[in-house]
Amino acid sequence: MKEKVISNQSLPSTAEPIQRLVQELNKLPGIGPKNAQRLAYYLLRAPEEQTQLLAETIASIKRQTTLCPICFNVTATDHCLICRNPERDQTKVCIVEQPQDILALEHTRIYKGLYHVLHGAISPTEGVGANDIRITELLERLKNKLITEVILATNTNLEGEQTALYLNHLISPLCIKLTRLAQGLPFGTELEYADDITITRAFEGRQGF
Amino acid sequence: MKEKVISNQSLPSTAEPIQRLVQELNKLPGIGPKNAQRLAYYLLRAPEEQTQLLAETIASIKRQTTLCPICFNVTATDHCLICRNPERDQTKVCIVEQPQDILALEHTRIYKGLYHVLHGAISPTEGVGANDIRITELLERLKNKLITEVILATNTNLEGEQTALYLNHLISPLCIKLTRLAQGLPFGTELEYADDITITRAFEGRQGF
Repeated sequence: MKEKVISNQSLPSTAEPIQRLVQELNKLPGIGPKNAQRLAYYLLRAPEEQTQLLAETIASIKRQTTLCPICFNVTATDHCLICRNPERDQTKVCIVEQPQDILALEHTRIYKGLYHVLHGAISPTEGVGANDIRITELLERLKNKLITEVILATNTNLEGEQTALYLNHLISPLCIKLTRLAQGLPFGTELEYADDITITRAFEGRQGF
Repeated sequence: MKEKVISNQSLPSTAEPIQRLVQELNKLPGIGPKNAQRLAYYLLRAPEEQTQLLAETIASIKRQTTLCPICFNVTATDHCLICRNPERDQTKVCIVEQPQDILALEHTRIYKGLYHVLHGAISPTEGVGANDIRITELLERLKNKLITEVILATNTNLEGEQTALYLNHLISPLCIKLTRLAQGLPFGTELEYADDITITRAFEGRQGF
C-alpha cells in the first residue's frame, strides 16, 4: 500500500502536533489531506472524553480481537458469534475474502449458514499465492461430513475469480455441492449504462421466466 | 452537534470491540457508517506501530497544544509560529473565525501580517454572542499603536457577516484602517451557474478595468 504524504511545507503555520495528527489521519484509506486537516481540528476541539475513548478504542482493537479458529472471522471471544450460534445451518459454508464481506451478506438476512474467511484472494501480480490465504484450513474443515454445500462468495474481480476457479478445482472432487453467487445486472441498472462484462455474464446466466 | 448513532443491530455478526470502534469513528465529521466500518477493518489489519502512533497522537493532541496568548491560533509553544516571526508585518492584523482559516490564507502566501482568531462567529440562533468569542482580546490588542490595518476575513455566510458588521461598529471609531476580503465571483465560475447573492455582490463591488 502506498503511503500518502503531506509535506510539512504545505502547513508551515500549523503547530507541530497538529501536523503530525494530520499526517497520521492522512494515512487512513479514503482520508485525503483536506479531510485529515478537518478531522484534526475537530479532534482538537472535541470533548476530552471523546478523543480519549477514540484513542483507546484504536489502541486496543488488535489486542481485544482475534480470529475465530473455525471460520477466521474477527471475534472478541474464543469462537465467533456465528460459529457459536446453534441455530445457524451447519451444512452450509459460504466462502468470503474478508471479514467485512460477512457484514454485507448478513445484512441481507438471506443466508443462515456458516462462513469461512480466506483473508485475501489469490493474486500472482501482488505475490499472493494459495498458501497465503486460509485454503488449507478450509479443506481441513470440509472433512466434516456435516457440510453438504459450499457457496463461493469471492469478489467478482480478477483476483476473486482466480480464487473461485482454484477452489472449484480443489473442492469439486470432494462430493460437496459447490455453488457461486450469481453474476448479472445489479438491481436498478439501466442497460444502456451497464458494462460489457456485466451484460455478457447476465446473458450467460439467463434464467427461465 | 448531533451524534450519529449506528445501532448494534445493523452489525450483529461483528465482534463487539469492532462495533465500538465503528461507533467512535462514525462520530467524526464526514465519516459515515460505511466509511467507519472500512476504517475499523483497516485499522484491525494495519501495522501495530501505525495504530499505536495514531492512537497516541489523538490522545495527546489536546495536551500538546494550547492557544497563542496573542492571536489565539493553536500552538505547541508559548507563542505561535506567526506571532514569533519578526519578519511578519506587525502593522496588519487579519481577523478569522477558526485556526484552520489561517492555513487557507497562508497557503496563498499573499499575506505577510499577523492574525487574530475569534474562535467562532456571532450567531443569535446558536446562542453565540459577542462575549463568547475573542472580541475583548482583539480590542485590547488593538490598543497597540503599531497596528494600522485590520482585515476582516470572516466567512461570507450569515454568521460571518453579522460578526464583520459588529466588528466594524467597534473598530471604526479607533482610527485604524478597516478592510474586508472582496466578495464576488470565484475564479473559474460560469456566470450562468453563479447564485444571485454572489452576482449581486460582484456587481456592487465592480472595479475599474
